[in-house]
Amino acid sequence: METAGRNTKSLALNTDAVRKILVTFVRDETHDAGFRKGVIGLSGGVDSAVAAFIATEALGKENLLAVLMPYKTSDPISRSDAESIAQLLEIRTEVVDISQMVDPMLQHARITDKVRAGNVMARQRMIVLYDYSSREKALVIGTSNKSELLLGYGTIFGDMASAINPLGDLYKTQVWQLAETLGVPRSIIEKKPSADLWIGQTDEGELGFPYERVDQLLYFMVDERRSDIELYEMGFDNAFIGTVKKMVMTSQFKRRPPLIAKLSHRTVNVDFRYARDWGI
Amino acid sequence: METAGRNTKSLALNTDAVRKILVTFVRDETHDAGFRKGVIGLSGGVDSAVAAFIATEALGKENLLAVLMPYKTSDPISRSDAESIAQLLEIRTEVVDISQMVDPMLQHARITDKVRAGNVMARQRMIVLYDYSSREKALVIGTSNKSELLLGYGTIFGDMASAINPLGDLYKTQVWQLAETLGVPRSIIEKKPSADLWIGQTDEGELGFPYERVDQLLYFMVDERRSDIELYEMGFDNAFIGTVKKMVMTSQFKRRPPLIAKLSHRTVNVDFRYARDWGI
Repeated sequence: METAGRNTKSLALNTDAVRKILVTFVRDETHDAGFRKGVIGLSGGVDSAVAAFIATEALGKENLLAVLMPYKTSDPISRSDAESIAQLLEIRTEVVDISQMVDPMLQHARITDKVRAGNVMARQRMIVLYDYSSREKALVIGTSNKSELLLGYGTIFGDMASAINPLGDLYKTQVWQLAETLGVPRSIIEKKPSADLWIGQTDEGELGFPYERVDQLLYFMVDERRSDIELYEMGFDNAFIGTVKKMVMTSQFKRRPPLIAKLSHRTVNVDFRYARDWGI
Repeated sequence: METAGRNTKSLALNTDAVRKILVTFVRDETHDAGFRKGVIGLSGGVDSAVAAFIATEALGKENLLAVLMPYKTSDPISRSDAESIAQLLEIRTEVVDISQMVDPMLQHARITDKVRAGNVMARQRMIVLYDYSSREKALVIGTSNKSELLLGYGTIFGDMASAINPLGDLYKTQVWQLAETLGVPRSIIEKKPSADLWIGQTDEGELGFPYERVDQLLYFMVDERRSDIELYEMGFDNAFIGTVKKMVMTSQFKRRPPLIAKLSHRTVNVDFRYARDWGI
């Protein structure tokens, strides 16, 4: 059984150490880039809540702007949960209803498909965050967790776009652990994960499996590089292994920068791939 | 003098070889990703014209969709130039006026700054292209050249966003050379480069120097890794070297994926950085 104790244990976090590492990461990367401030999209979910807690501790409450970006069909509870996080952290908020930006595109392209509509919403939110980033001279703090990144469960150039992402190496079940020690309200930790892109959407309904289960598999598959046979012997069934592996592989394009045709000795993102603070 | 003959020569392309490499690149990368089709934003400028010529040769004229995305202040000549390219190549076109998507954001955030407004436009165009990519099952073909990429002269998650980019390792002056042998109309090759994000905008006016000059410097600085002293001895003045170097360094964030705080053995884009067609 994949829910065996030792599997769960492998995802156990030293939350105090992780919190310190992430706070230092946000502070150092922001300051090294020449910024003092951050801007974050607060959805009302646990990921953006945890990222906001970390960023507030790193930058100071006066230096973080939380942007709430409801669409007309968004659950009102998402907004009130986001507001309660902002109040708890005493950070500034702005509200931008994205409906007026989203609807002309949905109408023009006659979009009825939920996933296509959701991608338009996620990208309109990116536009708002990046514009505010420019206006405020603030870095966009990302909120995509490792489960989402590896499964490709997110919108490229939408919610996956950020300057710095403190959560990208934490599985969803690890974000939950961290949320508890940070003091994120229990109601936010306990509600069903949802991108809230359409009414009734839940991550687990869309993915087809719970995070507890897929995080364990991803940990052994990716972090420990276990073979299919080892994974099977651990209790994961072959269909599940195959499904998840396919999701990871086919979404690799979302995790990599645009692919450039190589012609010279030094090609962007091939041989010209420094950290941001390098010197030529 | 930086306009000395040998410097110009260093940027001379073997256009026949480059054309073949780029056509093969677009064809192979599209097919390897499981696609047959491409989608491209045609601006009326030389970069998207060259990319469209390459993509048409690679995929066949029936497999490329050109999208024209004027804003209400766009120069009508941009649109007619884009249409003439599409006619020449006999590719399908669709027109999406982005004004209705752009204006609500400009109004809501009271954006008057030209650069911020231009970024909103570039990103709305990305939204259209990526939605059509999904609708058509077609890869987004990028059109950013190496001069723009290295100088950071483009919008991250806007015109810099693509699935595959055949031009990213060609300087602007090399794109011009390739355009001539491909048969791009002379009027398009000879007009002043402009992002057409506001009336009267030209690349050279904004950048403060012509592409002929900066491409030569970038070639020696980046491709040949020459020192400041060598560059100075070649005839580039120190202020120009300093300006360009600063532009390259401060725009590195636009060329790299979001930075993730490292916590595990295998972190996305740190130790988990395969090509797109890898197997776990």
